[in-house]
Amino acid sequence: MEAYFDNSATTKVMDAAAKLMLKVMKEDYGNPSARHRKGLEAEHYIKEARTNIARTLRVQEKEIFFTSGGTESNNLALIGAAMANSRAGKHIISTRIEHASVYQPLAYLESQGFSVTWLSVDKDGHISLDELKASIRPDTILVSVMYVNNEIGAVEPIEKISQILREKNPSVLFHVDGIQAYGKYEIRPKKQGIDLLSASGHKFHGPKGVGFLYISEKAKVKPILYGGGQQKDMRPGTENVPGIAGIGIAAKEIYDHFPENLSHILELKNALIDALEGLEGVEIHSKRGSESAPQIVSAGFLGVRSEVLLHALEDKGIYVSSGSACSSNHPAISGTLKAVGIKQEFLDSTLRFSLGIYNTREEIDYAAGVLKELLPVLRRYRRG
Amino acid sequence: MEAYFDNSATTKVMDAAAKLMLKVMKEDYGNPSARHRKGLEAEHYIKEARTNIARTLRVQEKEIFFTSGGTESNNLALIGAAMANSRAGKHIISTRIEHASVYQPLAYLESQGFSVTWLSVDKDGHISLDELKASIRPDTILVSVMYVNNEIGAVEPIEKISQILREKNPSVLFHVDGIQAYGKYEIRPKKQGIDLLSASGHKFHGPKGVGFLYISEKAKVKPILYGGGQQKDMRPGTENVPGIAGIGIAAKEIYDHFPENLSHILELKNALIDALEGLEGVEIHSKRGSESAPQIVSAGFLGVRSEVLLHALEDKGIYVSSGSACSSNHPAISGTLKAVGIKQEFLDSTLRFSLGIYNTREEIDYAAGVLKELLPVLRRYRRG
Repeated sequence: MEAYFDNSATTKVMDAAAKLMLKVMKEDYGNPSARHRKGLEAEHYIKEARTNIARTLRVQEKEIFFTSGGTESNNLALIGAAMANSRAGKHIISTRIEHASVYQPLAYLESQGFSVTWLSVDKDGHISLDELKASIRPDTILVSVMYVNNEIGAVEPIEKISQILREKNPSVLFHVDGIQAYGKYEIRPKKQGIDLLSASGHKFHGPKGVGFLYISEKAKVKPILYGGGQQKDMRPGTENVPGIAGIGIAAKEIYDHFPENLSHILELKNALIDALEGLEGVEIHSKRGSESAPQIVSAGFLGVRSEVLLHALEDKGIYVSSGSACSSNHPAISGTLKAVGIKQEFLDSTLRFSLGIYNTREEIDYAAGVLKELLPVLRRYRRG
Repeated sequence: MEAYFDNSATTKVMDAAAKLMLKVMKEDYGNPSARHRKGLEAEHYIKEARTNIARTLRVQEKEIFFTSGGTESNNLALIGAAMANSRAGKHIISTRIEHASVYQPLAYLESQGFSVTWLSVDKDGHISLDELKASIRPDTILVSVMYVNNEIGAVEPIEKISQILREKNPSVLFHVDGIQAYGKYEIRPKKQGIDLLSASGHKFHGPKGVGFLYISEKAKVKPILYGGGQQKDMRPGTENVPGIAGIGIAAKEIYDHFPENLSHILELKNALIDALEGLEGVEIHSKRGSESAPQIVSAGFLGVRSEVLLHALEDKGIYVSSGSACSSNHPAISGTLKAVGIKQEFLDSTLRFSLGIYNTREEIDYAAGVLKELLPVLRRYRRG
């Protein structure tokens, strides 16, 4: 049996998206900037994708910009907003548990004379609203907080954050890294006070190499790439038409079946937590319920190195991640796990199980059985 | 009959690339940063693509970096090289006929305190080597010249340029926008003295949304995107594995059959020029032979507006471009056509026919027949 529980690292492209992309690549392959029919056909795919995505967020089509993925979306949001608003101030607020594609652009901005306040989080991975309030200054121009943390699934209080910003300094732009949230939550930027929202296609069964950034029409953002004027000069370059068509249909499909998808994943999550709680020496870092994402279960396995367990599971066809795959080229122990105060003995013994719509209850039961068998054996090895 | 003569705007994805991409999207969909088998599988596709591309250029694998396309490759090369070398100087040299994805990043650099010398070109679109020599200063850090001009197909004297740079100021980095050249020329960066070379997948029957930048191991370049450490931090973000697999196999296929592909396209080019020369009131802006690219024929049609002719041809299933599709969102008349001194009466009457490996002799003959019929009619309308 095979059980792919690494859906927060990346997902399988859904059939509808792959099929459409194939058609675009082989038949409707025009350049959207071309003035003939093949150009118009190509442009039509982009418009349709933009419409589909705008609908899932209840925003305007002109507020959706396609990028090459989550990393570029976050870079454009952060560097673009900072550069466009630097006359108003150079102070930015973020958190200690952001993804590298947020904290690295912010570190770059620090090197360019911006200053960043990094909010701490409590044991559940939530920022303190009081600390946020105290951090807002007259020269604060940007706040960036992720919607769902990629390592433990903590969900940040987005509406409360934007309410505080409105009260204390309404000109501050609010960027939300929604890369793990889009597809799992009904996100409403206008209602929730989000000015900039990043998403990535391959996290919700769309293709790799394409993402989008929602930019509120009120937000001032400068481009970070320069070229031939595409996408109103905000993101030039020949549009990745097959990728855009793919992310558009994936977004539509996921949200057209949102309640079913969500309850399916939640059921699997609960079953997995139940199974893990039944095992000895396992600590679950993710919460049940709405304070934690439906798709992420982070758990520590006492006395077993995560790398060893990861490979033992792999041998049984079960794929999980240790830390976040997105930054695992860096051997440092996870920043998030430290930030939420995971006990020392679990820092190097934690795995992330991330669920997707194609997982089944049988896979959960299979994984539970394998873990029950493996853990005592691996612990014996370690002691021996 | 259909005749797609807009291959310099974009090409149809070849079957081998589309098929491989489908497999990667639906089966081998892992995240290359993941530590389990599905991650390794994905990483393998990237390695293979890098090997294939490095071989076509006779460079090292570690010198190939994947990007989201030509625009990003040019931005990374120019902004990245300028920022990494600004202590040595802030002077850059380029030409008046570059693509927007070169001149716009350079315009951005001008706004950041760099100064750019824009070399003029002669009537064939070639820069003057004497003007280049006279422009090099002690604080020159970067020279950027395109290999093949996208509008008229002019081929710049790459080796002579790099020789001058070596003689006058060997520390200057030489960037070549090879987006219209890769796949049509056997490019040898090491021999030709190219430090940075940009290419785009969708110009040679690979997918849109992916390109590469060759960065000589000796060249200092700073990244322009920040994130999770992928591609040695030069270009972070989850790699677009299907796109990279697609561009890799397209590169291999094109160069595995290079002599046949080239002679096929050259034969079509000659046939098209022969046919156009037989028509009244047509001026051909592209040269025959090696001073001009094999795939591009730019021609002016006296007394006919290019937009009108473009749409009349479209009605007959013939797809061409007026100016360069890549920047045609900007209504301004082509910079290149003006720079090479195309006569006023042709500025607004010029079409670009760009050929590809899937075009046939029959399509050329068909287009020639259609033009012979259409031109007198359209001219009569105009006079009437």
